[in-house]
Amino acid sequence: MRPSGRQLNEMRPVSIETGVTKHAEGSCMIRIGDTHVLCTATIEDRVPPFIKGSGLGWVTAEYGMLPRSTTSRMRREASAGKQGGRTVEIQRLIGRSLRAGVDRVALGERQITVDCDVIQADGGTRCASITGGWVALKLAVNKLMKTGSVISDPLVSPVAAVSCGIYAGQPVLDLDYPEDSEAGVDGNFIMLGNKQMIETQMSAEGSTYSRAQMNELLDLAETGVEELVAAQLAAVA
Amino acid sequence: MRPSGRQLNEMRPVSIETGVTKHAEGSCMIRIGDTHVLCTATIEDRVPPFIKGSGLGWVTAEYGMLPRSTTSRMRREASAGKQGGRTVEIQRLIGRSLRAGVDRVALGERQITVDCDVIQADGGTRCASITGGWVALKLAVNKLMKTGSVISDPLVSPVAAVSCGIYAGQPVLDLDYPEDSEAGVDGNFIMLGNKQMIETQMSAEGSTYSRAQMNELLDLAETGVEELVAAQLAAVA
Amino acid sequence: MRPSGRQLNEMRPVSIETGVTKHAEGSCMIRIGDTHVLCTATIEDRVPPFIKGSGLGWVTAEYGMLPRSTTSRMRREASAGKQGGRTVEIQRLIGRSLRAGVDRVALGERQITVDCDVIQADGGTRCASITGGWVALKLAVNKLMKTGSVISDPLVSPVAAVSCGIYAGQPVLDLDYPEDSEAGVDGNFIMLGNKQMIETQMSAEGSTYSRAQMNELLDLAETGVEELVAAQLAAVA
Amino acid sequence: MRPSGRQLNEMRPVSIETGVTKHAEGSCMIRIGDTHVLCTATIEDRVPPFIKGSGLGWVTAEYGMLPRSTTSRMRREASAGKQGGRTVEIQRLIGRSLRAGVDRVALGERQITVDCDVIQADGGTRCASITGGWVALKLAVNKLMKTGSVISDPLVSPVAAVSCGIYAGQPVLDLDYPEDSEAGVDGNFIMLGNKQMIETQMSAEGSTYSRAQMNELLDLAETGVEELVAAQLAAVA
Amino acid sequence: MRPSGRQLNEMRPVSIETGVTKHAEGSCMIRIGDTHVLCTATIEDRVPPFIKGSGLGWVTAEYGMLPRSTTSRMRREASAGKQGGRTVEIQRLIGRSLRAGVDRVALGERQITVDCDVIQADGGTRCASITGGWVALKLAVNKLMKTGSVISDPLVSPVAAVSCGIYAGQPVLDLDYPEDSEAGVDGNFIMLGNKQMIETQMSAEGSTYSRAQMNELLDLAETGVEELVAAQLAAVA
Amino acid sequence: MRPSGRQLNEMRPVSIETGVTKHAEGSCMIRIGDTHVLCTATIEDRVPPFIKGSGLGWVTAEYGMLPRSTTSRMRREASAGKQGGRTVEIQRLIGRSLRAGVDRVALGERQITVDCDVIQADGGTRCASITGGWVALKLAVNKLMKTGSVISDPLVSPVAAVSCGIYAGQPVLDLDYPEDSEAGVDGNFIMLGNKQMIETQMSAEGSTYSRAQMNELLDLAETGVEELVAAQLAAVA
Repeated sequence: MRPSGRQLNEMRPVSIETGVTKHAEGSCMIRIGDTHVLCTATIEDRVPPFIKGSGLGWVTAEYGMLPRSTTSRMRREASAGKQGGRTVEIQRLIGRSLRAGVDRVALGERQITVDCDVIQADGGTRCASITGGWVALKLAVNKLMKTGSVISDPLVSPVAAVSCGIYAGQPVLDLDYPEDSEAGVDGNFIMLGNKQMIETQMSAEGSTYSRAQMNELLDLAETGVEELVAAQLAAVA
Repeated sequence: MRPSGRQLNEMRPVSIETGVTKHAEGSCMIRIGDTHVLCTATIEDRVPPFIKGSGLGWVTAEYGMLPRSTTSRMRREASAGKQGGRTVEIQRLIGRSLRAGVDRVALGERQITVDCDVIQADGGTRCASITGGWVALKLAVNKLMKTGSVISDPLVSPVAAVSCGIYAGQPVLDLDYPEDSEAGVDGNFIMLGNKQMIETQMSAEGSTYSRAQMNELLDLAETGVEELVAAQLAAVA
Repeated sequence: MRPSGRQLNEMRPVSIETGVTKHAEGSCMIRIGDTHVLCTATIEDRVPPFIKGSGLGWVTAEYGMLPRSTTSRMRREASAGKQGGRTVEIQRLIGRSLRAGVDRVALGERQITVDCDVIQADGGTRCASITGGWVALKLAVNKLMKTGSVISDPLVSPVAAVSCGIYAGQPVLDLDYPEDSEAGVDGNFIMLGNKQMIETQMSAEGSTYSRAQMNELLDLAETGVEELVAAQLAAVA
Repeated sequence: MRPSGRQLNEMRPVSIETGVTKHAEGSCMIRIGDTHVLCTATIEDRVPPFIKGSGLGWVTAEYGMLPRSTTSRMRREASAGKQGGRTVEIQRLIGRSLRAGVDRVALGERQITVDCDVIQADGGTRCASITGGWVALKLAVNKLMKTGSVISDPLVSPVAAVSCGIYAGQPVLDLDYPEDSEAGVDGNFIMLGNKQMIETQMSAEGSTYSRAQMNELLDLAETGVEELVAAQLAAVA
Repeated sequence: MRPSGRQLNEMRPVSIETGVTKHAEGSCMIRIGDTHVLCTATIEDRVPPFIKGSGLGWVTAEYGMLPRSTTSRMRREASAGKQGGRTVEIQRLIGRSLRAGVDRVALGERQITVDCDVIQADGGTRCASITGGWVALKLAVNKLMKTGSVISDPLVSPVAAVSCGIYAGQPVLDLDYPEDSEAGVDGNFIMLGNKQMIETQMSAEGSTYSRAQMNELLDLAETGVEELVAAQLAAVA
Repeated sequence: MRPSGRQLNEMRPVSIETGVTKHAEGSCMIRIGDTHVLCTATIEDRVPPFIKGSGLGWVTAEYGMLPRSTTSRMRREASAGKQGGRTVEIQRLIGRSLRAGVDRVALGERQITVDCDVIQADGGTRCASITGGWVALKLAVNKLMKTGSVISDPLVSPVAAVSCGIYAGQPVLDLDYPEDSEAGVDGNFIMLGNKQMIETQMSAEGSTYSRAQMNELLDLAETGVEELVAAQLAAVA
C-alpha cells in the first residue's frame, strides 16, 4: 500500500502549463502531483568555446530549488557561495539527457539554456525537470523555426523521465517524497518517445537489486514515459 | 505620457494570491503588473547568535531572481559563486523594512525568514518583495497565534513599499521597467499603514532633485501605499 | 544633550589634508572629528566594457576599513574572502554619488577609481568618504586639465554628504558613533554645492518618522553640507 | 576490432598492490592497464553530525586526479578553488557504492574516509577507484578487527565496478580512454561479489540504446566483476 | 651609484610615530623613506584552538596594502576574494618573526594580533612591518603590564628587519623600490637587538650568490638593524 | 643522537626513478627516505601574459600533498576551496628556485610547469620537490632538444635543495619529520651544482641562531647538495 493510495503502476496527476513567463523564448510550469518546476529556455547566439566554428549547436541546463520549496527551508545556494554536489549532478544530467534528443547540426551554431527551478518539491524533481525542460526547449525551437532561423526540426522526439523504485518490497512507479525517502532502491529512467533509452540510473544504499527487479522497474518506467510523452505532445501542440 | 498609458498617479494592477506553496508557514505570489514575486515565510526556533537569550525575535529576508525573470538571461548567482552587490543591498533593505513593523518582544525568541524570489521582473521588484513579504510574514505569524505560541500580535501595522520617480520631467507613481531605465531620479518609499515612514531612498545618476520634487514624490508614494495596504489587508483577512 | 556636548546643529571639526600619498593622481586625508578616511583617486585609460567606445568617462569607488579602525578589531575582508554586504552597499553609494556630479562627456573615455580607506572610525564614514572622495577626484581631474587631456572641467560642483538623525528624541547633525548606535532614525544626505539633492537615505529600525521630522533633518543637512563644501573648496584651491 | 587488440569481453591486466603508503590504515595501488589509482583508507573516531549518537558507522570517499595524470595537463582543482562537477559526481558515487557493502552497525560509530587519487589515467578511473577503494577499506577494517575494536566483519562481500559500452557498434568490456572517448553508449556497473547490483549508470550522448543492448552490457559486466573480485580477494588475503 | 644617491651602507631616514589611532591597544606609523606602514596591535582574550588551555600566549600578524599604495593601482584583495600568495607569505613571516622575540609563558593565554597596512610603498614593506609591528606589540604589552595583567615583560628584546641586496654588482643596505626591482639578489634579515638571527631569507632569480657575498650582506644588515633598534627603543621609551 | 640513528652529516637514502608516468614530458619519483614525491613536467606553447612576445621562456611549479600522505589525514585543498598559505609559499619557492637555473633565452617562448605531488611525507618535502622537480624539468627539456625545438641546453647546472637544522643542540643534515617537528632552527638551502646559492631560508620559532651556527649549517648543506646532484645526474644520464 502506497502512502498516497496510488496503484503500484500509477503516476501522480501530470499537468504542463506553457507560456508562463513573458520573457523566455520557451517556458512551462510542470506539475507532477505536488512537485512543481518552472522551466524556461533561453536562446543565445554564442556557443561554448569548444564548439565555436563547428556549426553545431549546444543545449545546456541549470537547476535550482527555491529555499522553501522543501519541507524545511534549505540554505540558498547563492548565499552559500556554491552549488552543492547534488545540484551539479542533476543539472549535468538534465543537459546530457536533453542533448541526446537534439540534432545538433539542424539546430545550428547557437546555444539554448534550459533553467529548471523547483517551486515546490515532493520527490522526482530531476525527472520533472527533464520532462518539462523538453517542453520549454521545444517551444523555443518552434520560435526559431517560425522565423526561419532553423529549417529542419532538431527535436525529432520528446525526451521524458520518470523515477521508479522498490518501496516496501514492491516495485512502484513515480516515487513521491515519502516513498523516495524510504525506498531501498530507486532509479531514474530517461527515454525518447519510442522507449529507446538515453540514461539509466539505478542506485541502492545499504541494499542491492537483482536483474529481475531491474527489469520490473524498466517495465514500469515505460508505462510512465508513455503518459508523460502524451502530456508533452499535448502541451506543445 | 507614460509608455503604459497610465496616469501619473496610477499604480499597475495589484494582486496578492496567498497559500501558493504547501510547505511554507506563510506564502503569497504578489503581482504588480508584470512583476511577479513569490514570497515565503519560514519560522525557526533558533535565532542569530547576537540575540540568543534576549527573549527577542528576529525577522530576516533573502532575495533572488530566477535567471530568466528578466528580458535577457542573467547569470545564476549560485553558479557565479556569490550574491551580487545589488542582491545584497535589496535583501538587507527588505529585512530592515519588515523588522521596523515588528514588535520583537511579542514575537518571542524565534526567527522568521522571508524569501522573495522574482519569477518575472518588470521594475519595482524590491518594493513588491517588501509588500508581498509582509503578507507572507503575517500569515506565518497568524499560525503562531492560532497555536498559542504567540499571544499578542507582533505585527501592529502593514509594511508596504512603492517606487516613484521623475520620468520625462514628470513625477510618476510605480515605475515599470521601461520607465525605471529612463528615469533621471527614482525613489523607494517604505511606510507603515498610517504613512509613518520606515525608509526613504531617493537617488539620481547624472541628475539631481529639489526639495519640492522630493515632496511631490512623497505625495504620490502615500497614494500608492494606501492602495497596497488595502490589498495586503484583503489578502490576509 | 549630545554625548560630545555639541549643539544640535553643530558639526564636528572638519579638516582635509591633500597630497598625502605620492603615487595617487589625487589624494586627501579627511578628518571629521575622530573619523579619518584616506581617499585616493586613480586615473586609468581603460573604461568598463559597457561604455567602451561611447566617448563617456566613468567614476567608480571602493571602500574599506582597516581591521583596527574600530573599537574592537573587525575581521579583514581580504582574509574573510569577500566584501561584506555593508561594504558593497557603501562603495556603490560613493560611486553613484560622485558620478552624479560629473560631466561624463567632458571627462572623456577614461575611468577614475576613488578608494576610500577608513583609518579610524567614529561614525559617518560613508559621508566622510564621499566628501573626501570628491576632493581626491577633483585633484586628479585638475592634473588632467593641466596636461590638456581634459579641456572643460567635468566637475561643475562639489559633492558632499552628511548624516543626520533623531537622537534621544531630537534631530541632530553629523552623528558620531555613540549617537549613531543609539539613534532611532538616521539618514545620509548627499548634495551638490547648491543644495540640489543627489541621494537621500533615511532609515529606521524599530521606529518610524513623519514628514515633519524628515524636513527637520533636511534643514540640518543643508547646514552641514554648506560647511563641508567650504572645506572642500578651500582644500582644492 | 578494439584499438588495444583486446577481445570484446577481455579486461585489461589487473593488479592490486597493497601497503603502498606507511601512514594510512589501509592502502593500495590498483592498476587496470594504464589506469593507476592510489587508494587509502583513514579511520577516524568522529562521525558526521547527522549520525552522531546513533551507533552507526560511516564510509565516505574523496576523488582527485593529479594534474598530469591525463594526456594534457588539467588545472589543479585546489588552485582553481573548487572541485569540478565531474569530481563531485564521482566521489559521491564511490562513497555510495562502498557504503552499500558495509554493515554500518557492525562498523560501529566511526568514519572511514577512502581517498582515491588518480596517478595515471587511461579510462575507467571511477571504476578502478571503487574496486581499489574497497581493498583499502577492507585492510583498514582488518586492523580494527585485529585490535578488537570491531568484532563482527562489517564488510560481508567485496564491492567492484567495471565499465562497459558500445564501441564501433559492438558491446565491449572495460573501456580504455580511446574507446571511452568514442563510445556512443557507456555504463558503469557496480556489484557485490554475488552479482547483486548496487548501482547501474548507463548514458548516451547523441545516441540511445535498447533493452537488448542493456542486457548485453550487463552480461559483460558480470564477467568483469568476477575477475575483479578474484583480484580483490587475493589482495586482501 | 645608488638611484637615491645614498652610500652603500646608508639606510633611508627612519621615523616611528606612536599612538596614531585611538582604538588600538598599541599603534605606530613607521616611515622608512617613502615606505609608510601603519601598525596596530589588538589584544584578545581568546587564543587559537591548538593552544587552548596551555597557558601559552600567541602573537599573529596580518598584512595588507592599500590599493593605491603602489605606483599603479593594485586590485583590492577583499574585492578579488582572496589574499594573494605574496600577502600570505609576508604575513606568515611577520607573525613568525615577532613570536621569536616573545616569551609566550610570560604573555599568558591571550592573543595579540598585529595588523600591518601599507599606506605608501617604496620597497621593504615587509621589513618595515616587522620593525613597526614590534613597536605596536610592545606598546600593547606595556598596557597589559601597567594593569598588572602581565607581570614579567614577555618582550625581552626588540625584533627588527632590514633588506639588503646586490644592486648593480654591489652590496647595498635597505633597498628602495627602484633598487629592489633591479637587484639580482636580495635578502631579508630579521634579528634581535643583540644581532642573534631569527630569520634569513636570501633569494636570486636568474642569478646566484656565493658565501662571501652572503657575508657582506649580513654585515650590512647588522648595521641597519642597529639603527632600527635604536629607533624602536626611542619610540617605546 | 638522531632518532633514525644517522650521523649528523648523513643524508637519508636517495633514489630517483624516472619515466614513472606515460603522459608527462618528463617525470620522476624521488624518494628521500620515507619522503616520496612524484614530479612531472608539462611543456606548453603559451606563456604568461607578462612575457608574451618577449622570446623568453617560463618555468613555474605547483605543489600538493595527497590527503593521507601525512600521519593523520589532512583536508584536501580542492575540497577546502583553496590552497593553504604553506602550499602557496612552497610552490612559489620551487618555481623561483628552478627558474634560477634556467637560461630563459635558450628555452624560448614556452612554459614548463613542474607539478610536485607528495605521495608520502616524512619531512623535507619542499627540498625533495625542488631536487626531483629539476630532474623532471631536465627530461622534458631533453625531449625539446631531441626534436630540435631547443638548440642550446637551457639547463646549465642542476638545482638541488636540502634542509639542515639544529636538533637537540646539534647541527644536522636532512631533517626527517621527527627532527623537523622538534628543531629549534631549520633552514632550506637551494644551490646549483657548483654550490653557488639560489635561495637560503633559515628560520627560528622561539629560538635564535648566530652567524657561526649559520655557517655550520651551510657546510652541512654543501655536503648534502653534492650527494643530491650526483643522484640527479645519474638519473638523467
